[in-house]
Formats: sequence, structure tokens, C-alpha cells
Amino acid sequence: MSLVVQKYGGSSLADAAKIRNVAQRIGRTRDAGNDVVSVVSAMGDTTDELIELAGQVSGRPEPREMDLLLSTGELVSCTLIAMALRTLGYEAISLSGAQAGIRTDTSYGRARIALMQPERVARELEQGRIVIVAGFQGITDDLDITTLGRGGSDTTAVALAASLEAARCEVYTDVEGIYTADPRLVPKARKLDEVDYEEMLELASYGAKMNARSIEMGMFYKVPILVASSFSDAPGTLIHEGADMNTTVGEIRNRIRGIAVDTNVAKITVRGVVDRPGIAAGLFEPLSAADVSVDVIVQNASVDGTTDMTFTVKRTDLGRALEVTRLVARQLGNGEVASADSLAKLSIVGTGMQDAPGYASTMFRTLADNGINIDMITTSEIRITCIVDEAQVGMAARALHDSFHLDSPTQVP
Amino acid sequence: MSLVVQKYGGSSLADAAKIRNVAQRIGRTRDAGNDVVSVVSAMGDTTDELIELAGQVSGRPEPREMDLLLSTGELVSCTLIAMALRTLGYEAISLSGAQAGIRTDTSYGRARIALMQPERVARELEQGRIVIVAGFQGITDDLDITTLGRGGSDTTAVALAASLEAARCEVYTDVEGIYTADPRLVPKARKLDEVDYEEMLELASYGAKMNARSIEMGMFYKVPILVASSFSDAPGTLIHEGADMNTTVGEIRNRIRGIAVDTNVAKITVRGVVDRPGIAAGLFEPLSAADVSVDVIVQNASVDGTTDMTFTVKRTDLGRALEVTRLVARQLGNGEVASADSLAKLSIVGTGMQDAPGYASTMFRTLADNGINIDMITTSEIRITCIVDEAQVGMAARALHDSFHLDSPTQVP
Repeated sequence: MSLVVQKYGGSSLADAAKIRNVAQRIGRTRDAGNDVVSVVSAMGDTTDELIELAGQVSGRPEPREMDLLLSTGELVSCTLIAMALRTLGYEAISLSGAQAGIRTDTSYGRARIALMQPERVARELEQGRIVIVAGFQGITDDLDITTLGRGGSDTTAVALAASLEAARCEVYTDVEGIYTADPRLVPKARKLDEVDYEEMLELASYGAKMNARSIEMGMFYKVPILVASSFSDAPGTLIHEGADMNTTVGEIRNRIRGIAVDTNVAKITVRGVVDRPGIAAGLFEPLSAADVSVDVIVQNASVDGTTDMTFTVKRTDLGRALEVTRLVARQLGNGEVASADSLAKLSIVGTGMQDAPGYASTMFRTLADNGINIDMITTSEIRITCIVDEAQVGMAARALHDSFHLDSPTQVP
Repeated sequence: MSLVVQKYGGSSLADAAKIRNVAQRIGRTRDAGNDVVSVVSAMGDTTDELIELAGQVSGRPEPREMDLLLSTGELVSCTLIAMALRTLGYEAISLSGAQAGIRTDTSYGRARIALMQPERVARELEQGRIVIVAGFQGITDDLDITTLGRGGSDTTAVALAASLEAARCEVYTDVEGIYTADPRLVPKARKLDEVDYEEMLELASYGAKMNARSIEMGMFYKVPILVASSFSDAPGTLIHEGADMNTTVGEIRNRIRGIAVDTNVAKITVRGVVDRPGIAAGLFEPLSAADVSVDVIVQNASVDGTTDMTFTVKRTDLGRALEVTRLVARQLGNGEVASADSLAKLSIVGTGMQDAPGYASTMFRTLADNGINIDMITTSEIRITCIVDEAQVGMAARALHDSFHLDSPTQVP
């Protein structure tokens, strides 16, 4: 009997009928001869409704209070799933994050798991029970409730799978798996059978919205993760180590796995900064202290001892980032600060890319042929990213999907 | 600086505006120089909504799961109150029942408090914080969440007041205090300034619907309990030991404090039971095992070696009680079982009654003069109860209120 950890997202649990459906799926996994631990998110829009309620009583809710408030959403859904399973004749028990032994630090709102102590989970499994765990939440040494941030239920599931040495972690959501591109942007997008952890990390910004920390954790502990739909029996996408390129044709392989698009992008340019050592640190340390993540950074060659520096931040962080940047720019020589917020990040992703030339040039040529201006460029070993106008990103993604033949599993560029 | 424990009921917390109102009241108590612990119920109809949700996924929800589910309602309201207080500039923190150290047995759905360990509450108070505690819930030795049954937040408040040695426990609700009778039945009903614990126990079935266990606990630990409205600044009713009769006029006192009416009453009669020792035990032990509380019991004098036995149960328990009674009656000599469910319990209550004659006869005479038939009679030291037709109980209560002059604090019968 092998242990399977499953995770069901909020859209799979939006009402009583959907909850009964999920209970049946869990039951079938049990019937197939598995031990089952299921991690659940809050029902439908519960979390957003609780955030709105908090907004009605407080302009800036205390993070500790917010976490205790939000943790209730997952408690509701995990008890209902356990009840539905018992109605179907299965032995089931629900556990809060605290009861499941998920110990975290005290970073309320985005706590990190410090220690897994799933003894109670193991004990209930030994007694033949299906264990339903409230996702997204943990407990501090001082017995305060924390939440793991958006997507935190994925992290709960992978952490439980790793600590219980489960055979597999299954993440059920409202899409059928990981696609070569966001199907809403690229109608020809194709579902992948499998994908590497590293590729998934790069692709994580679209499709099955899996949280990056859970993928990193899966990679570190070598937990195979299946992403599939809770509304169908389609096979889904398996995230695992050294996934074979499912586009292999003899020796010729398509080394591009997919296209990622992120429209939560803004850029800031600081002009006429005195070019001396420590400039970058002087700017980016205060941004980091203000909790702003800087993504792409470009520094122009120095002219007359001054330079321009451009970087991107999340669009949702732009206000805060500008505030800090203007303050720092004054100290660094009164550099002029400009910003733009209608940008998008467009990436091609694939582990084979690093050993094969030509992918970058194909990408740049395709964009040029379609009249799309590239604002900034950045690369990793398995990714090439261009910053482009948001208005053009859909067209750009479709053009790249075509030129890299991602709609077909057998063709190569 | 003295410590005040307050409790706010669900109707006082029904929406964001009411929550802000309660936060302001708590703040004023703090401003008056008190340490404050506030115990809160779930917002408005939250508990009923959660019960309905459980009913949609399960015909008979597991009590353990039900308790974890229901406990979320109070977590939501306690965090919102803490947030609202912080917005008003007060240091406040919310604690779950578990965090507040409320340890219970494992009787899910109506757990009893086994041990109070409010160290965390004391620690937060020492740091100058207002502490908001989720009512109605506790935690077992195995770290499972329990609920204390309907009205359990009252019990939480009184238990915290007792264990923290608070100066007073204040129970805020949607009525202004304890009345001489239910004002919906008796328009002339008058609010009492004070009342004995024992009288309150007898009166508890109407008006400020305080839960009997919390009154018993207040009596045992000598915690003065103020019942008042969260919507006004009217002074409320103080429940304490040896309350002076507020109807004192020189040496002449009205020994009746009030009239209690309970319409959740049904009766069962078993006819032709063989009259031998052990009959009562043979009937009432199985009823107790089936979790049916029997209230008034009348056994007729034996005729020809057989007897009739009549007893009342809660109307909501009638189905279950009949099932058990029919089974037992067959074993006890095939006695005929009859039942009636449109009855009501009408009581006059007052600690002074036991030393003074005439109250019972005044009661019976008043009912007779108004054409009301008395079905059964039972008395305690401080109460005389008649079982009457439910259709006549309003008229009966008004007649008794008049004949005992309860509308006036100075007149005596």
C-alpha cells in the first residue's frame, strides 16, 4: 500500500456538490489501495471574502490577526470533506495545520515551514483513516497560527508528501495540467505530459498556478508532483526530475518546453547616476528592505561618469518602489527617476536550451518580424526573457508558439 | 486596575458596523482604567450557516468534525474585534480557546471544561493588551478542538473570570437585562436591577438567554455577572450572591422575583404499569442512556397493583423519548403509552418563597380564576411550576404577573 498526498484547490471545493465530488475522488484513490492524505484549500472565494471583512473593520489589519482569521477557511473545508467521506462510508478525520504538525517561523502572511512533525497524521493513517489536512496554515513555537501565503496549500501538500515519504503528490485544480503556454493567450497551447522541476519553476507564472516554493521543495526532496483537474479524469502533467522531452523524435528534440507570460511588471529608470562602486547596492538594498523584489536589471555603459540604471518590479509594488527609488536617487546625485507600468515579461523555457545555439536569435527574429519592440532582455540557463509592451504580449506569445512549433509534440524548429 | 471579563453575543457582532461598535465599547471599558478580556460568540447566524453547510455534505456529521467546523465562527469574530480595536489605537490580541488554555473533556458538541490554564491570557494582559478570546470552544488533551454547546461562550467568559479572579463578568446581549417575565409574553414585565444566582438559574429559560452552566459556575466561584445590552448604556441586571430584593418596602417584601415560561415541553404517560420496586429506574435509566432529560415526574397512587406514570421531556426530544418508552413499556407489562406535545411550563421564582406561605395557593387560585387547567405541578425551594396548555400560557403569565404585582417594585401581594 503506497501513500498518496493530494491537494485540492478552492475552485474544486466551491460548494457542497463540489465537496461531495472531491470526497468521491478521494474515496476512489483509497479504493485503489492507497493510503491517502488530502490537503484542502478554502472553499471558493472564502479567503477573499475574509480579507474583505477584515477591510471593513480595519484599514491595515494586523498580520497575526489576519492569519488566524484566514486559517478558518481551510478548517471549514477540511471538516466538510471529512464529513462527506464518512457519509460515503470511509473512515476519515480532519486535522488543522497545527494538528498535522506544520511548524513555521513567525513571518505572518507568508510563513516558512521550519519543521514538520506529522506524527498525528502518521498515527491516523496507521489506524486506517483517510487524513484531511487544512492547507495554507501552520503554528509557531508560541502556538500562534500562521499562513504560508497564496498558494500555501501546495506547499503544505508537498511538505507532507516529503516528510511522510509519500510515493507521489497530486495537485488537483481547475485546469488539466501544465501547458506550453497560457491557453487564454495562445489557443494552440498544448498540455504537457511531463515537465522538469526547473522548467516548472520558470513556467509557474501561468496555467496551473502552482506556487514556486512548493516546486522547489518537491525538487529538493525529489517528490514527483502530478498536476491535474479535479473536474475530469484527464491524465494531467507530471513534474519530476529529468523529465524526458515529450517532443523527442529520434535525435532531434524540441528543447523549448513552453512560453511564460507575466503581466505584473513595471519598470523604473534612474538617469544620470554617478557611476562609482556601490551604486547598485546603494539602490537595491533599500528596495529589498522595503520588501520590493527587483527582477530584471540593466545598467547602461557609463558616459561622462554617469550612467542610467533600469530595473523591473512587480506592478503591484510600483508605488512603494518609486518612493524608495526617489529617496535614494537624491542621495546618489539627484538622478532623474522615470517609470512605466504597462509592460509584460515574455519567456521561452526549456532545459535543453543551454546546450543548443539559435534559440535566442529565433526568439528575437520572431519578435522583430512581428513588429514587437524588445525593451529589456535577461536570460537564465533554461530561459530567455524579453520585456515587451503589455499590449503586444498576446500576439508575441502566439508568434513564438508557432515559430517554436510548440503546438506539435513531434516537430522541431 | 481591576480586571473585567466581558462577553458579546452573536447578535451584537452581526456585521462590520456592529463589530466596530463592540470594539468601541471594549475601548471605553479600557479607558475607564480596567484590564479587559472580551469573549466573543460567532457573528450573527454564522453557527447556523455552518450547521446547514455540514447538512449539505453529510446526513449525520461526525461530532468531532462538527466541533472543528463550528469553532471557526468564533475565530473569525475574535480576530475582527482585535483588528477593530487596533484601528482605534488600542493594543489588542485575539486568542483561540486553545491558546486561552481552555482544556475540556472529549464530549464533542457539549464539552465540559476540565481545566483552565489561562497563562497566555495573563501574559498578554501583563503586556498591557486587551485580550479577545474565541468563546464556545476548548481543546482536549489530544489537541482536538471541542465546543461547549449552545450558550458556551457564556461559560467561557465566566470560567475565565473565575480563573483570572476578575472583579466582574459582563454578559452583553440584545436585551437590557433580566426581566420579571418575557416581555414578548407579558408587556408589563419589568427589568430587575439584581437577582440571585439561584433565581437566575430558574429564570434562565427566558429573557437574557444565559446558559445554566455558566450561572452555576458563577455561583460556585462567586463571580458577579452583569447582564446588559450591547446596543445601549442601560444599567442591566447584576446576578450575584444574596441579592437584595429590589422590591423591599420596609419589612414587607415581594418574595417573587419573576415568572419563567418554557414552551419546549412534551409529556409522556405510561398507563397500567405493574407497581413494583425498580419501575422508575427501569424506565428512566434507558431514557438517560438515550440522552433524554426527564423533567417533571408524576406517579399516581397504585390501583389494583398497577399505576400510571407521567413525565415531561423537551418537545425536541419527544420522538426519541417515545421510542425508548414504548420499548421499556413492553418489558414492564405492556403498559399503554400516550403523549402530548402542546404543553408549556409556567413557574414563579423567588428565593424568599420557601419561608413564606401562600404563594402556591395564590398561583393556583389565579390560574383557576382565569380558567386555566393545571396538568402537573412540581416545586423546588425557590420555584413553583405548573404544566399547562401551551395555548393558555401567555394569558396565564400575564395573570400571575398582575396578581403578584411584579410590574411594580414596591407593591407586595
